[in-house]
Amino acid sequence: MTALQKFESKWNEGKFVCVGLDSDLDQIPLSIRDREVQKHEVMFAFNKAIIEATCDIVGSYKINSAFYEAEGDAGIYALEHTVWYLKKEYSDIPTILDAKRGDIGNTNNGYVKSAFDHLGVDAITVSPYLGEDSLRPFLDQKDKLIIVLVKTSNPGSGEFQDLKLESGSKLYEYMASEMVKWNKNGNIGIVVGATYPEELASIRKTVGDIPILLPGIGAQGGEVGSTVKAGLDSNKQGIMVHSARGIIFASNGPDFAQAARTAAVKLHEEIASAISKA
Amino acid sequence: MTALQKFESKWNEGKFVCVGLDSDLDQIPLSIRDREVQKHEVMFAFNKAIIEATCDIVGSYKINSAFYEAEGDAGIYALEHTVWYLKKEYSDIPTILDAKRGDIGNTNNGYVKSAFDHLGVDAITVSPYLGEDSLRPFLDQKDKLIIVLVKTSNPGSGEFQDLKLESGSKLYEYMASEMVKWNKNGNIGIVVGATYPEELASIRKTVGDIPILLPGIGAQGGEVGSTVKAGLDSNKQGIMVHSARGIIFASNGPDFAQAARTAAVKLHEEIASAISKA
Repeated sequence: MTALQKFESKWNEGKFVCVGLDSDLDQIPLSIRDREVQKHEVMFAFNKAIIEATCDIVGSYKINSAFYEAEGDAGIYALEHTVWYLKKEYSDIPTILDAKRGDIGNTNNGYVKSAFDHLGVDAITVSPYLGEDSLRPFLDQKDKLIIVLVKTSNPGSGEFQDLKLESGSKLYEYMASEMVKWNKNGNIGIVVGATYPEELASIRKTVGDIPILLPGIGAQGGEVGSTVKAGLDSNKQGIMVHSARGIIFASNGPDFAQAARTAAVKLHEEIASAISKA
Repeated sequence: MTALQKFESKWNEGKFVCVGLDSDLDQIPLSIRDREVQKHEVMFAFNKAIIEATCDIVGSYKINSAFYEAEGDAGIYALEHTVWYLKKEYSDIPTILDAKRGDIGNTNNGYVKSAFDHLGVDAITVSPYLGEDSLRPFLDQKDKLIIVLVKTSNPGSGEFQDLKLESGSKLYEYMASEMVKWNKNGNIGIVVGATYPEELASIRKTVGDIPILLPGIGAQGGEVGSTVKAGLDSNKQGIMVHSARGIIFASNGPDFAQAARTAAVKLHEEIASAISKA
């Protein structure tokens, strides 16, 4: 089963929520920190609790490498064990390593080995600035989903991404059109910030049914209804609606897992409602 | 002492070679692999031997994270211990973590913590696609050097970087001009591939005395004389001339460290000669 098929299988079950395990150690509830002594155990135990509370309603999990690298070896341990736990216990749920990697070709082999051979995730986010030739080691992974940054969710994403080209289109628009050409193996996904629903609608028209990862819901200001409406593909699928802080840190009390479930269910239902109206 | 002052101090000694510790495990000579049993010890022992053979003539060491992440925990161990060994034994030699990181602001805090608090390198490479607001956590590190990708060395770097903007300039030219604005803390460096000497000359005019990291010499085809001539700043300094494979894998026999030294000395002398003619 390819990564794309894993995502599609979840979409067929009506599951589009992508829970971001941005498990910033300093924000993990004291009820976990008091129970576990070591940093790596705290982060892993927190993730395990969030996963167990949300696994039946999510479409994917996204693990952002930065929050783990921040804690050195302990964080790397927690990252590895979280991915391996998901693969062992919930192998039907696709995993995304959010790493935004991108180097020259020879060097990207190392990142490919790390993400797919060592960790074994289904998908990875990559940065496009170096161009297609550099990303070839990623794009050659036919069974994986390679999710390329096109229009990011941050307030200043327009600084370069909205630059007007001589051809008349903006850089992110050109990038979106290139993604169709890069998709020879049918393994391309893209990132478009939920904070830019108008741009999202235009990008969806350009990229056809290429899957879109949509960060920026909740804490960053993205709104579910307009995002889903603008992001759906021709099958009313093709989206990973990402929320991290809004779900995993919904409560910092001992009820954090239940609160995460409640927040994930709410997002799941908002998406279902938006799809039914689309 | 800031990172920039560390680089300047080496430039004042006439040292511009940046040795890339791209220590791909599969290419490490058998003489080391036979001596050490465990992967992490092989990688670290190799790096230590290269460092000891070249430390008196280099201007900096660059460690590319991908080659270490490829080996999982063992690689992370080797990366950490290489950086910590350099800090302890050769604290006057600046270290660059080549990671090409770049996420939204909140998330970049994790990469900042990893690179500067945990590892303690002097400089890091970052990808600019998300814009200045996202890179703020890096740019706020006044004592570090934040080295931004402007024009990369790979054959297809022009796919996006050479795009002509409505304003008439190319994307990489615009990026270079933005770097001057981003340099409020005097802690910006940039990456320009030695494979593009004409573009380098034009970028140098734009960025003034901002330090330039120059990968692409040797295996990738960049030529020392034209690169140095085009890259020097107004003080005939300001460059890190990077070579990895051409130095660290100059021999795969038991003489690898001596061969690395010979290759590094040759590059050092070619740079000195090019500077004297500039």
